[in-house]
Amino acid sequence: MIQWKLWIIKSKEVFGDDKMAGIKDVAKLAGVGVGTVSRALNKTGYVSEETKKKIELAMKELQYTPNELARNLYHKKTGIIAVLVPDIAYSFFSDLVRAIESDLYEYGFKTMVCSTFKTKNYEREYLDMLDRHMVDGIITGVHSLDIENYLKTDKPVVSFDRYLGKDIPVVGVNHWKGGTMAAERLIEAGCTHVIQFQGSKAVNSPAHDRHTAFARRMENAKIPVMTYELEWNRFDADYFQQVAEEVFFKNPEIDGVFGADLMAVSYMKTALTQGKRIPEDLKIVAYDGTLLTTNIYPEVTAIVQPIETLSKKCTELIVKKIEGGNGEEEGLKDIRIMVDVFLREGGTT
Amino acid sequence: MIQWKLWIIKSKEVFGDDKMAGIKDVAKLAGVGVGTVSRALNKTGYVSEETKKKIELAMKELQYTPNELARNLYHKKTGIIAVLVPDIAYSFFSDLVRAIESDLYEYGFKTMVCSTFKTKNYEREYLDMLDRHMVDGIITGVHSLDIENYLKTDKPVVSFDRYLGKDIPVVGVNHWKGGTMAAERLIEAGCTHVIQFQGSKAVNSPAHDRHTAFARRMENAKIPVMTYELEWNRFDADYFQQVAEEVFFKNPEIDGVFGADLMAVSYMKTALTQGKRIPEDLKIVAYDGTLLTTNIYPEVTAIVQPIETLSKKCTELIVKKIEGGNGEEEGLKDIRIMVDVFLREGGTT
Repeated sequence: MIQWKLWIIKSKEVFGDDKMAGIKDVAKLAGVGVGTVSRALNKTGYVSEETKKKIELAMKELQYTPNELARNLYHKKTGIIAVLVPDIAYSFFSDLVRAIESDLYEYGFKTMVCSTFKTKNYEREYLDMLDRHMVDGIITGVHSLDIENYLKTDKPVVSFDRYLGKDIPVVGVNHWKGGTMAAERLIEAGCTHVIQFQGSKAVNSPAHDRHTAFARRMENAKIPVMTYELEWNRFDADYFQQVAEEVFFKNPEIDGVFGADLMAVSYMKTALTQGKRIPEDLKIVAYDGTLLTTNIYPEVTAIVQPIETLSKKCTELIVKKIEGGNGEEEGLKDIRIMVDVFLREGGTT
Repeated sequence: MIQWKLWIIKSKEVFGDDKMAGIKDVAKLAGVGVGTVSRALNKTGYVSEETKKKIELAMKELQYTPNELARNLYHKKTGIIAVLVPDIAYSFFSDLVRAIESDLYEYGFKTMVCSTFKTKNYEREYLDMLDRHMVDGIITGVHSLDIENYLKTDKPVVSFDRYLGKDIPVVGVNHWKGGTMAAERLIEAGCTHVIQFQGSKAVNSPAHDRHTAFARRMENAKIPVMTYELEWNRFDADYFQQVAEEVFFKNPEIDGVFGADLMAVSYMKTALTQGKRIPEDLKIVAYDGTLLTTNIYPEVTAIVQPIETLSKKCTELIVKKIEGGNGEEEGLKDIRIMVDVFLREGGTT
């Protein structure tokens, strides 16, 4: 079992106050955009003489060393970071990707987003591309079954919600707390027959903690819980609808539901279509808290994964690894960043 | 005004039966994946001797010419196609991107997805990257205000829903028909005071046709229509919620609504929260027809943009342009592909 250290991380705590100056600092001081500094350093686009001088002055003042510059060029940086997600159209991932792309832009990087739902070979091909220098780093949120490929590469990788070995920092929310909060909300709401929908257990993801915690809390309260294990790597809406209907009709006694946004909303739709009243007859707590749960009536009570914070952590780490030469910084070993979750009350409990 | 030719296109009609053999055909005959053929041709990864022989035999049989091979290598193909969308987290775009990525994968290409909502400079930086050979082609669905940059490049570009000059093929749905169908559905449902939400008119997009057609059809039926013009490049949910509330409270007489999915669903949520019955008090027709309109109760009646077809057209065209040397094919000038829309009945009319 993985021991999770509860690190409520602030940037300074991880990186220290004497953080090595990065492109962002140079840009700020020179009064130009990070993209401009990036272009000037990597000679990848037009920059006026006046601007070049401003940048050189800023580099000097911040002691952004010539060695780093040489290293950037030597290492043939492309200025592109790949972000791998299982399915770009799945609400949580598209929101996360948008935030990551926006944050990476501020650091002067472009983002290559890749959906790997088609096949697990896709993930391996991206690692190959990484090794051939086409991207400077990868942020991966993919839950493929093979982790050996990640262990072989020495390129900068940051993992989202998946343990990939001690050299790869992992960023995720406090799933244990999330699962406990969800259980407590349904207990408080008076549920007597509860079901939770869990992702495939074949994947080694910290997200499972939420279901372990949920079941445990329910057990403490002596409330029966069914756990339905969803198929691996299925993100399509039709599948969730099918599961919702199957479960709903087989188990009319269910009065409490816990699952990720799309599953929760699919179940809600089925119940409403069959004339159930929410929350009177059925209570629902979703997990993720995306648009799917807020742009609907009634709004769904949800355990929210704070996407902006998750993105900030992932991007700070990948940029740090890239700019720091990946692995030369002792501070980047064994990093597990656990971001706090919170409950957002809706009309379904 | 742009003259739209109604081309209900099938692949053979555009490309002809004597279509030049492409990577897909070689792969099929050799009995391997397109990614494998791509790697063999571009020498971008390991391929066994046995597989190489199979591929060579297939190339010979299909007369996939050595000149093409030389051209691919000469032109330093990266095997990456960039897809630009205004906002990767906006339901319609993330669905479209997923379909495009999947189709491009079948052709042996990787996809770099870019959300440009941050700034229009982002779009120009991508064109620069294209010119520096980092991607082989671009599929763009971005509605930025500058089109001059596209006119300058001679790289392969395919446009989605935006006119960018006669050398760039455009793929889109028949918006005129879509707008007319939406109007007819609301007229049929007995609406007497209708509002339609339109995107910013500062953007030259064929999508506006749906609103022109809608207003015209309503005028024919002598039904008063308000047209609310949304702000440029705003895709965030909070904005739509804000607009929905503003309009709902100011115009209690409205009994019919037409707008893109997220806007329509936001209005529906506001109305339901205020105790309105749907469809009894208020009818709604959405445009796009994504998950937002189906995973909800009641399901929203929608004019559906068939994403799989749109993706197939965009990807066929960009691959054709890339493999054909971009512009050497006369058949690729002045292409406007108009895909048919259809109405999907829900519970809101």
